[in-house]
Amino acid sequence: MFYHDKKLQYTVRVDKPNPAFARMLQQAIGGIEGEIRVCLQYLFQSWGSRGPQKYKDMLLETGTEEMAHIEMLATAVALNLEGASSTVVDEITGTSPIVSGIMGGMDPRHYLSAGLAAMAVDSNGVPFNGSWVVGSGNLAADMYANVMAESTGRVLATRLYESTDDPGMRDMLSFLIARDTMHQNQWLAVLEELGGVQNALPIPNSFPMTNQPSEFAYTFISTDIDKPEAPAARWVSGPSIDGKGQFTYEHARPYGPEPKLSPPPPEGYAQQEQMTGGADGFMEKVKETLF
Amino acid sequence: MFYHDKKLQYTVRVDKPNPAFARMLQQAIGGIEGEIRVCLQYLFQSWGSRGPQKYKDMLLETGTEEMAHIEMLATAVALNLEGASSTVVDEITGTSPIVSGIMGGMDPRHYLSAGLAAMAVDSNGVPFNGSWVVGSGNLAADMYANVMAESTGRVLATRLYESTDDPGMRDMLSFLIARDTMHQNQWLAVLEELGGVQNALPIPNSFPMTNQPSEFAYTFISTDIDKPEAPAARWVSGPSIDGKGQFTYEHARPYGPEPKLSPPPPEGYAQQEQMTGGADGFMEKVKETLF
Amino acid sequence: MFYHDKKLQYTVRVDKPNPAFARMLQQAIGGIEGEIRVCLQYLFQSWGSRGPQKYKDMLLETGTEEMAHIEMLATAVALNLEGASSTVVDEITGTSPIVSGIMGGMDPRHYLSAGLAAMAVDSNGVPFNGSWVVGSGNLAADMYANVMAESTGRVLATRLYESTDDPGMRDMLSFLIARDTMHQNQWLAVLEELGGVQNALPIPNSFPMTNQPSEFAYTFISTDIDKPEAPAARWVSGPSIDGKGQFTYEHARPYGPEPKLSPPPPEGYAQQEQMTGGADGFMEKVKETLF
Amino acid sequence: MFYHDKKLQYTVRVDKPNPAFARMLQQAIGGIEGEIRVCLQYLFQSWGSRGPQKYKDMLLETGTEEMAHIEMLATAVALNLEGASSTVVDEITGTSPIVSGIMGGMDPRHYLSAGLAAMAVDSNGVPFNGSWVVGSGNLAADMYANVMAESTGRVLATRLYESTDDPGMRDMLSFLIARDTMHQNQWLAVLEELGGVQNALPIPNSFPMTNQPSEFAYTFISTDIDKPEAPAARWVSGPSIDGKGQFTYEHARPYGPEPKLSPPPPEGYAQQEQMTGGADGFMEKVKETLF
Amino acid sequence: MFYHDKKLQYTVRVDKPNPAFARMLQQAIGGIEGEIRVCLQYLFQSWGSRGPQKYKDMLLETGTEEMAHIEMLATAVALNLEGASSTVVDEITGTSPIVSGIMGGMDPRHYLSAGLAAMAVDSNGVPFNGSWVVGSGNLAADMYANVMAESTGRVLATRLYESTDDPGMRDMLSFLIARDTMHQNQWLAVLEELGGVQNALPIPNSFPMTNQPSEFAYTFISTDIDKPEAPAARWVSGPSIDGKGQFTYEHARPYGPEPKLSPPPPEGYAQQEQMTGGADGFMEKVKETLF
Amino acid sequence: MFYHDKKLQYTVRVDKPNPAFARMLQQAIGGIEGEIRVCLQYLFQSWGSRGPQKYKDMLLETGTEEMAHIEMLATAVALNLEGASSTVVDEITGTSPIVSGIMGGMDPRHYLSAGLAAMAVDSNGVPFNGSWVVGSGNLAADMYANVMAESTGRVLATRLYESTDDPGMRDMLSFLIARDTMHQNQWLAVLEELGGVQNALPIPNSFPMTNQPSEFAYTFISTDIDKPEAPAARWVSGPSIDGKGQFTYEHARPYGPEPKLSPPPPEGYAQQEQMTGGADGFMEKVKETLF
Repeated sequence: MFYHDKKLQYTVRVDKPNPAFARMLQQAIGGIEGEIRVCLQYLFQSWGSRGPQKYKDMLLETGTEEMAHIEMLATAVALNLEGASSTVVDEITGTSPIVSGIMGGMDPRHYLSAGLAAMAVDSNGVPFNGSWVVGSGNLAADMYANVMAESTGRVLATRLYESTDDPGMRDMLSFLIARDTMHQNQWLAVLEELGGVQNALPIPNSFPMTNQPSEFAYTFISTDIDKPEAPAARWVSGPSIDGKGQFTYEHARPYGPEPKLSPPPPEGYAQQEQMTGGADGFMEKVKETLF
Repeated sequence: MFYHDKKLQYTVRVDKPNPAFARMLQQAIGGIEGEIRVCLQYLFQSWGSRGPQKYKDMLLETGTEEMAHIEMLATAVALNLEGASSTVVDEITGTSPIVSGIMGGMDPRHYLSAGLAAMAVDSNGVPFNGSWVVGSGNLAADMYANVMAESTGRVLATRLYESTDDPGMRDMLSFLIARDTMHQNQWLAVLEELGGVQNALPIPNSFPMTNQPSEFAYTFISTDIDKPEAPAARWVSGPSIDGKGQFTYEHARPYGPEPKLSPPPPEGYAQQEQMTGGADGFMEKVKETLF
Repeated sequence: MFYHDKKLQYTVRVDKPNPAFARMLQQAIGGIEGEIRVCLQYLFQSWGSRGPQKYKDMLLETGTEEMAHIEMLATAVALNLEGASSTVVDEITGTSPIVSGIMGGMDPRHYLSAGLAAMAVDSNGVPFNGSWVVGSGNLAADMYANVMAESTGRVLATRLYESTDDPGMRDMLSFLIARDTMHQNQWLAVLEELGGVQNALPIPNSFPMTNQPSEFAYTFISTDIDKPEAPAARWVSGPSIDGKGQFTYEHARPYGPEPKLSPPPPEGYAQQEQMTGGADGFMEKVKETLF
Repeated sequence: MFYHDKKLQYTVRVDKPNPAFARMLQQAIGGIEGEIRVCLQYLFQSWGSRGPQKYKDMLLETGTEEMAHIEMLATAVALNLEGASSTVVDEITGTSPIVSGIMGGMDPRHYLSAGLAAMAVDSNGVPFNGSWVVGSGNLAADMYANVMAESTGRVLATRLYESTDDPGMRDMLSFLIARDTMHQNQWLAVLEELGGVQNALPIPNSFPMTNQPSEFAYTFISTDIDKPEAPAARWVSGPSIDGKGQFTYEHARPYGPEPKLSPPPPEGYAQQEQMTGGADGFMEKVKETLF
Repeated sequence: MFYHDKKLQYTVRVDKPNPAFARMLQQAIGGIEGEIRVCLQYLFQSWGSRGPQKYKDMLLETGTEEMAHIEMLATAVALNLEGASSTVVDEITGTSPIVSGIMGGMDPRHYLSAGLAAMAVDSNGVPFNGSWVVGSGNLAADMYANVMAESTGRVLATRLYESTDDPGMRDMLSFLIARDTMHQNQWLAVLEELGGVQNALPIPNSFPMTNQPSEFAYTFISTDIDKPEAPAARWVSGPSIDGKGQFTYEHARPYGPEPKLSPPPPEGYAQQEQMTGGADGFMEKVKETLF
Repeated sequence: MFYHDKKLQYTVRVDKPNPAFARMLQQAIGGIEGEIRVCLQYLFQSWGSRGPQKYKDMLLETGTEEMAHIEMLATAVALNLEGASSTVVDEITGTSPIVSGIMGGMDPRHYLSAGLAAMAVDSNGVPFNGSWVVGSGNLAADMYANVMAESTGRVLATRLYESTDDPGMRDMLSFLIARDTMHQNQWLAVLEELGGVQNALPIPNSFPMTNQPSEFAYTFISTDIDKPEAPAARWVSGPSIDGKGQFTYEHARPYGPEPKLSPPPPEGYAQQEQMTGGADGFMEKVKETLF
């Protein structure tokens, strides 16, 4: 279960409110690279964790920490929106300051729907989507999902850092960037502990290798119609990364035949012509049999 | 640009059609772990690729291959649905075979919407969602996104393999399982070529290390209120995986103060009580000033 | 910021695992009436709270408690899924136990995507959607949103209670039902503290009453073409609930004219006929002027 | 504006309630082929109609009629759900009748969320989506959108008809099937009135033909790598359907060069290797310049 | 069933078209606080209404009225978009007026997709979502859902009113604001008629009180780790709002144990290490048993 | 299966990058009128095609061509984003060039999420949705779906053409506009080959005409309460378009009775008052029986 502290994990200070930057920060809250996603992802992985206890515990720890990051960012959005409205309608343009804000890149829903506060949406107002919460039940697949989340998350945070010169915002973002560094390392530490790439791959490593045709398991298939020679690249020759095969290279070709489906059954209510073999002389047949 | 061959990349054979299995196969077509996602993900990464040409080329190759996998699975769904309907209504139960199919785990839209064919949805009929197509513009982040996609994809394929004893379906799935093995290795080969974990991390490696507070970059923060000692785990001591720091361990504590927001501005149309300081003596003030 | 305890807020015990019931429990996790919604709703309302401090604090408390409820339900789902699979394929039907599970009302993604664990989706596998997280910045509107959430939430919990006779599940649900009772009372207590319905309505009470035409503010408008007499009902006569008007009753009639829009501008690329006045003699004009 | 009548447009009678059929009927309410979509589509097209008044009027008429169809189907769902629950828990299986209903193909949310009533979702519980409401502002494009909606809608209705032998349900569906026949004819009547295919195409017919390269406007491009001869088909030779060109046939070939993008800008925070030209000798450069 | 009148319920006049305001109005059409939602919500509640007839009738009336509100707003959007485009490309900036419109806060789809008309989306272009249509089958829960909808709806309308100084738009919005006043009162009138809060709560009031543990039903649980004293607030002492208990206050503590799940079953294809107990000596076992 | 060529189907050249135009181009990639939709729609129709082989083949051809169009547009987006960022923060406004870009109509995710590349979203950042991929299994319905897609698609392309004066972009768009011309003609050619409107309608033409009540199949129903006379329009008199009936005109009237549903069952946990007949004297009964 969970407890809280009224203080923030790290200081959130906005020196100069900027509604357009508030909109950009939403990506780090409700976007696919954002903190709601990692928070729920680590917690759901923990709650469904089967196997060694230590991973369940660690996921619970870091999922709880991410809650505090959503809180920091939501606070930052609210502070950036202060001053985003004003009671005076612009005399000259006939446009209110809010409409000017929208014209200036603000999310209109920050005013219309939320009264100058953060929402569970991304920087385009697209709502957070639960499908992004990945927990496969396979520990190695989940660790890669987590590395991916922290990698795209840290890329996002550095771009937000670049988008502002507000000292308070840069200070907050540099803290989050540092935490993402730790979390990238942390999930890879689990993979190292599990024996590293050579043991973990192919994921899942519990599926018998004999059940997959080995001739397709380490071959790069080129679909280029110009049939170029193999490039000078790690993935076309030499031992595979998992140490269980040799990379080879081949040009794509079909191993299967042309697919054929049965005609539609009557109760599928396709067009009559689909059932009687098509466009030749069908009208007579149709009229005879149907109407 | 793209070309096609009327043949399949690998044989698709269904020995005994099973509409419930058709529904399960949809997860591998339109689900977050599915082939539409990887196809579009690799192609979008290729089309937006900036930097060395060889990665752009490779992504285009494998994205094109994944198109063929969607085709195989869509064919498999259609074949599993043959026989899912019949013109005879069951005399005894008053239930048509289609309704029986729904009762038996079939997706009703396979009949109602698609006339016994595959759709761009997952195994619960939830449509494919473009947000799953990740391409960050950062090559290492994208490679981890791809490893994750192929890991959860291969886990899914092995579970589908387990869910059927149809020899044709198992043969097709074993081919896809083998290709996922290659693709897991392939994306990790790029990371190896880029210098491996020690060079790639923290992602993005182009953000100056001096811009992140180093004291937060390699510390595991425990949020457990029981303040346990550090566990025996790789991620709490020793050199970090990226070789740029030392793991440490600490108990969570706030580095920031309690957050305070300004009162709502008048044009936000909060309740009057929020503006005048709350629940003490507000009714008088409200009535005086507002109505 | 947030902390955790490895224990659960209340015992979760499943006496007899039931994968179909696991699917039903998902509604209480990722559905619109579920716990992810109320958790995020209360937390976002707290983080964006403007005005008296006590409401910000209280929302933070109860939002944190709801995290523990998601945890309990996710644990309940995982326990109900134990035994949902088996390595033996049924000899007679050619159907694996998992396929039988799907036929029996299980969510196939509980196996295929999550490896027998909870997901951030509803009982049909539709993902949690951030649009459900309502925080308007108006305290009274938000309290009604919260009463609504706890009302539909408690209705859901009683229906889940009715759907199982597992003593462990009924015990857990009765705890959640009791907490929903408290939370319904709690949000209404805020409204009482704010002066009750007569002070709060119309929400927002900070919008000047003089800016709305009073003749439309307390009239029930009947759209019934049979123009029935007013029913014997509270909402057609007597003082309004907010004490600021008298209910009246009238039959619908238009106060506005028929709307007319301008013809489409050329750069909108409507059909030529839309621009030249329509279907009379247009072909000549079109051919002259366009092709 | 709108009025109502408490009666239904056509009788809705359910002789034998069937919760699985209730779920199937949802496709005709909240699915992409369903009545909410056509209702809103025709109304939005009417409300945004620019050009001849008669089309605006007609769209308003039929949009209003479709409201009555949603009502009929929602009533049919509610009637099919009567008897879907019961207070007695099954002594033997330990499963309540509701859980049995789920196992039998019922949508669990019909009980859990709606208390045995219709919802604004499709037959898999996927919510109605406003993106399906198409109104382009181009009358001919909109008429084709409407023909398509009524075509897939009537196909759906015939499949629902086939899925039940309940005389009441078949009677209601036959009425809806007849109305879809009228509506297909109706939208095509508009196209005929507008001069038919030869005048309407290419849509939009107001875009100057000289602005499109004519050599690409009537050529079927075959992407088949086997470069087959042109098939015996209407679309590869002879006059085009719009009478403005001659169909021809050619094998796909690129008219453009290989695309090249610039290297990523520094503030995009790609990996360092993407900026310095890639995998050859990059580690030295990276270490020198960055850390 | 339904009828229409070609006139509007209330005049819609736009004195000075403003495409950015057109975008903001979309929130009141297709947003979660908007008119499509309340229209469908009241109609679906009516169509599924079980119990006293008068509520079914009233919901049908007001649902029908809301249709007219969508119509008014859609008309307002179309009128605000007039003049949003022009055939002349700006000589100096090389930017067309439409692109300038986008830069000025316009929704690009108002031109690109709709040809200067309203769409079924919110102010960020996010489509209307059927999940927002709440009808629980419990009358009191539904009335609170409706109060909430009209509260957030009226807050939205007042903010739109504030965002424009167009006299025509303010006139239309003041009408809608007045109708929302009535509707807030109307739904609360039903609750009063049903006996008020003391009779209605806890919702559902038909669930036996003896089935919920009374010790958890009226206690505010504080999750604050600083264990503060109870605040001076209505919800921590005194009689509960429903009159069925006494509010108390306590600090959060776990009533349940640490949860434990079983190891993953073989056919879940977790990593081998999850099955054999984790990171100690597993590689030997794995290699022996699996490959 | 599929192959590729590294060249583009047609040249993509951007003379003057424009991030706001990049955002608009996204509508043609990931919008409902866009190329991902038609690509997947034609391919899924092909993969599920039942009946004459020639249609399956043709759909595969054109679906493959559409892949190349996504590629062209994605390249155009990336090229329009070049120059959208810069390392220098504006000294005067304290706003970075990226924030200025957002203010100027750019999609912030083009920088934040994609690093200056295309995404699988529309021009508002709303993700591509698989529900748009229509394949009904009925060939005529599918052809109308395809005509509709190419009609709204060509309307979109002409509006994009109008929105730019970049010669490179106009050249690319004119190619796509020409291809849409061909594709509109192509799908209608199939309908002509199938016997034209008179044979195809009503779709599906395989449903027995005797199963629909003919008196409702060709009547325009006017819902106008003013009961106007029939307009001078093609759809109210004369032979129907399908040649199988005569258009007539009538004023809407109910053919069905008022619908009545049963009271809620106890286990639906409606309010007690819904079960005991409503608002008269219920409180006594409720208190006696329930608490």
